[in-house]
Amino acid sequence: MSASDVVTALRAAVPADRVLTDPDLTSGYAHDEAEWAPYGEPAAVVRPRSTEEVAAVVRVCAEHGVPVVPRGAGTGLSGGANAVAGGVLLSLEAMREIIRIDAGERLAVVQPGVVNDELRAAVAGQGLWYPPDPASAPWSTIGGNVATNAGGLCCVKYGVTRDYVLALEIVTASGEVLRVGRRTAKGVSGYDLVGLLVGSEGTLAVVTEVTVRLRPARTAPTRTVVGFFDTLSAVGDAVAGVTAAGLQPAIFELIDRHCLRAVQEWKHMDLPSDAAALLLAQTDLPGLAGEEEAAAILAEFDRAGARDAMASTDEVEAEALFDARRLAYPALEQRGDALLTEDVCLPRGQLAVMLARVEEISARHRVPIANVAHAGDGNLHPVMITPMGDEAARVRSQAAFEEIVDAAIDLGGTVTGEHGVGTLKRRGMERELGPGVVALQRAIKAAWDPAGILNPGKFV
Amino acid sequence: MSASDVVTALRAAVPADRVLTDPDLTSGYAHDEAEWAPYGEPAAVVRPRSTEEVAAVVRVCAEHGVPVVPRGAGTGLSGGANAVAGGVLLSLEAMREIIRIDAGERLAVVQPGVVNDELRAAVAGQGLWYPPDPASAPWSTIGGNVATNAGGLCCVKYGVTRDYVLALEIVTASGEVLRVGRRTAKGVSGYDLVGLLVGSEGTLAVVTEVTVRLRPARTAPTRTVVGFFDTLSAVGDAVAGVTAAGLQPAIFELIDRHCLRAVQEWKHMDLPSDAAALLLAQTDLPGLAGEEEAAAILAEFDRAGARDAMASTDEVEAEALFDARRLAYPALEQRGDALLTEDVCLPRGQLAVMLARVEEISARHRVPIANVAHAGDGNLHPVMITPMGDEAARVRSQAAFEEIVDAAIDLGGTVTGEHGVGTLKRRGMERELGPGVVALQRAIKAAWDPAGILNPGKFV
Repeated sequence: MSASDVVTALRAAVPADRVLTDPDLTSGYAHDEAEWAPYGEPAAVVRPRSTEEVAAVVRVCAEHGVPVVPRGAGTGLSGGANAVAGGVLLSLEAMREIIRIDAGERLAVVQPGVVNDELRAAVAGQGLWYPPDPASAPWSTIGGNVATNAGGLCCVKYGVTRDYVLALEIVTASGEVLRVGRRTAKGVSGYDLVGLLVGSEGTLAVVTEVTVRLRPARTAPTRTVVGFFDTLSAVGDAVAGVTAAGLQPAIFELIDRHCLRAVQEWKHMDLPSDAAALLLAQTDLPGLAGEEEAAAILAEFDRAGARDAMASTDEVEAEALFDARRLAYPALEQRGDALLTEDVCLPRGQLAVMLARVEEISARHRVPIANVAHAGDGNLHPVMITPMGDEAARVRSQAAFEEIVDAAIDLGGTVTGEHGVGTLKRRGMERELGPGVVALQRAIKAAWDPAGILNPGKFV
Repeated sequence: MSASDVVTALRAAVPADRVLTDPDLTSGYAHDEAEWAPYGEPAAVVRPRSTEEVAAVVRVCAEHGVPVVPRGAGTGLSGGANAVAGGVLLSLEAMREIIRIDAGERLAVVQPGVVNDELRAAVAGQGLWYPPDPASAPWSTIGGNVATNAGGLCCVKYGVTRDYVLALEIVTASGEVLRVGRRTAKGVSGYDLVGLLVGSEGTLAVVTEVTVRLRPARTAPTRTVVGFFDTLSAVGDAVAGVTAAGLQPAIFELIDRHCLRAVQEWKHMDLPSDAAALLLAQTDLPGLAGEEEAAAILAEFDRAGARDAMASTDEVEAEALFDARRLAYPALEQRGDALLTEDVCLPRGQLAVMLARVEEISARHRVPIANVAHAGDGNLHPVMITPMGDEAARVRSQAAFEEIVDAAIDLGGTVTGEHGVGTLKRRGMERELGPGVVALQRAIKAAWDPAGILNPGKFV
C-alpha cells in the first residue's frame, strides 16, 4: 500500500476537491504554532464539508491503516495537531455552520470549524454568552477548543470548555457516526463520554458537531483593579489575599516586568519600567456588590504592598490597562525572536514560588523568560525567548522548558493548564501521572482505537 | 471455591472485625432505598478503615473472582449499591475522616464515608461552601455522591458533584492504589479520568479519597419568590419566562398538587388545595441585584398567570415556604405506601409537556403519581404511590415507571438526571444511548475491569 493508494481511495470516497496533495497547499497544514514540535509531511490534507464526508475519510484511513490527524485552525501550542508523515491531515475548517441557537434551552449547536469569536458574537445577538475565551478566540475553532479543553481569561470564574460542552457528534476510529451526551441541563445516564472526549486531542474520535451550554449575557458594567508590585512575593501575597477574602474576580491576570517592558518599548504606554509585575483584576458583580468587590480587591493589593494600585470604572481607561495584557505576547513577537510558550498550572499558593524558580531557571540557562499568568487559577505561561536561528539558544530554551515542567510537578502542579499535551508535554505528563495512571489512559485509547490510527504519537 | 473460602481469605487480609457475615448484621447492607430493585445475599460485608484495607479486599475478590459492590450510606434510589448474591459488599462508612480543608486553595480532602452535611458544616466553619446538596445530604456520603454524580437544589446555578471533584484516590479492579486528577484549578494533562469516575457507580474502581473544590461561602441574604399556578401549562410558561429573561435563581423548584395535598394533610400548613403546582425560586445575588432578580422572577410568575405570587425577604417566612418542598417526600411516606421515585430530566421547555404525560400515564395505569421537580433544570421526580403489599398495584407502578422513562427519551430528555442508572434504569439507558454508544461504554468497562468484578449487573 502506498500513499497514492490512500489518495486514490480518498478521492473516490469524498468529492475530489476536498483532497489536497499539492505541497504548496498542504505545507500550511503540517504544524500548529508550537515552536520546535516535530511534524511530518502528510500524504494528503482533506477538507470535508459534512459528517458523512468525515466518516468516509476515517473509514478509508481505517481500511488502509493510515493515521488521521484532526485539525482546527492550527493555533495550538503543544503540537497536538501536527501532521504525521504519510498520514491524512483532516482539516475541519470548512465545517463552520452555526446550526442552531436555542435561547429557551440556553444552548447552541455548531460544526467544529466555527471560530470561537463567531460563536460568541452570534449568541450575544440573542442575549447569551459563551464564556470560554482563549487568547486565540479570534482564530481558533470550537472543535480545536474542545480537543484541548481550552481555557482563557474568564475561566477563573466561569470554567473551561469542558464545563460548556453538553453533547458531541463524533466519528469513531472505525468510521461510525455516534452522538454522545445530552441536551438537558443535567444527566447521569452512562459514563461521561463527553467529558472524556473534551481535551482528548483527537486521539479517541473526530468531533463533527458540538452542542454547547450558554449563559445569559452579562449586563452589569465591569470594574477593573490594577496594581504594580515590586517583588514576586508581594504578587503572591496579593493573589493569596484575594482568595482568602472569598473574592471571585471574573478575570485575574499577571503580567511580569519582561512583558511590561516589551509592551512599553513597542507601544510607549505609560507603564512603570521597574515593577516586578502588574496584577489586573476585573469584577462583574452587579451594582453596589461590584463596587464592594473592587474595593476589597484593591484593599488586598494595598495590603500586599502594591504600588500605584487603583480601581477604574471608566471602560476606556480599563481597556487601556487590559491592553498591556493583550499586547504582551504580540509585543514579544515584534522583536522577531522564536517564542516557546509554557503552560504550567500551580496550586494558587505556589505561584510566586514558581515565578522565582522560573527566574532561577532563566538565569542558569541564559534564556530570557517573560511571564504572563492567569493568576487567579495559578496558570502560568512562561515564554522562552530565543533569537531566530541561534541553535545553541534553542537547545538552552528547550532545557529550560523541561525544567519548568519538572518544577511545576514538584510544586504540586500540572504540566499543562489549558494548552494540551500534544507532543511537547508527553514526557512531563507521564512523569506527572505516573505509570499506573498512564496505563489506565492507554487502556481507554486501546479500547476505542485498537489500530491506533487517531492522531498517533500525541497525548498518551 | 466456596463463599467460606472468600470469607477466610478476607479475614486473613484485613483485621477480622472488619468482616461481617452474621445475617442479622449484613441484611441491612443488602440494598439501597430503591423500591423493588433486585438484590442478593452477600457472602460478607466488609467495613475497611483505610485505603490499604480496601485494596486488600479488592485483591482477595480479584483472586477469587468474586464480585465487589462498594456502598456509601445506602440512600441511593436506583439499586446501584445493591448486593450481588455471593459477592462482597464493601461499605465505606467507617472511612469518614475529613483529612484536610485548605482555604488558600479552596479545596478539601475527605474519605469517602464523610457525610455530605458534615463536610458542608466543616468547610462553612472556614468561610467556604460545598454546593452539591442532594435531598439525602444529612445521611448520604461524599463517596456515594461521587458514585452517582449527585445533584440537589443548588445545582441549577452551581453545578453537580462532578463540577466539584478535583482528584480521587482509587483502588482499581486489580487492587492497585492510584491517584487521578489534580490539586490545581485547571489542568488538561491526560484524559479526564476524574470526570469518568464520577457517576460510574463503582463499576470502574473503588474511590478511597476525594479532593473537592470549594466556593467562598455566600454571605448575602437570599430572597424567595413563590407562586401557585392553576395549570401545568402556566407552570411551563413561568419556567420558560424566567429562563428567557436571563434570570439565574440559585434554587428553582416545583411541587405539584399531590405533594401539596400530602403536606397539607400532614402538617396543616396554609396551602391552597386546588392549585396545580407551586413554584419556589430563590435568588442569592447580593444587594440591589438580588432585589431586582426577585422582582423580575415575580414578574415572570405573574405574567404566566400565577395566583398568590409573592416575594419574601423574611428568612422565617421563606423557610416556611421551603418546608412545603422539604416535607413533600416525607409527607407522602407518612401514608405508609411504597414509593417508587423517578428521576427523568427534560429540556426545560418540555417540562410542562412531560408533566401532562405523567398525568396521562397515572390515569391510564391507575397509579397515583406525585411530582416534585428541580424545575430550573428540567429534572422531574414523579413518585409512584403503591399501597404496601398490593401486588397488582406494584405491577402497574412498574409499568408506569417504564413508560415515564420512554416518554422522557421521546421528548429529548434523559432517563436519569441525578439518581443514577443502578439496575432500575439499565433498559432506559440502553434505549437512550443506543447500541453504538453503549458499546463505547462497555469498552471502557472491559478495559479497566476485564474480569467484571466491580459492581457487576449495574450501570453498563
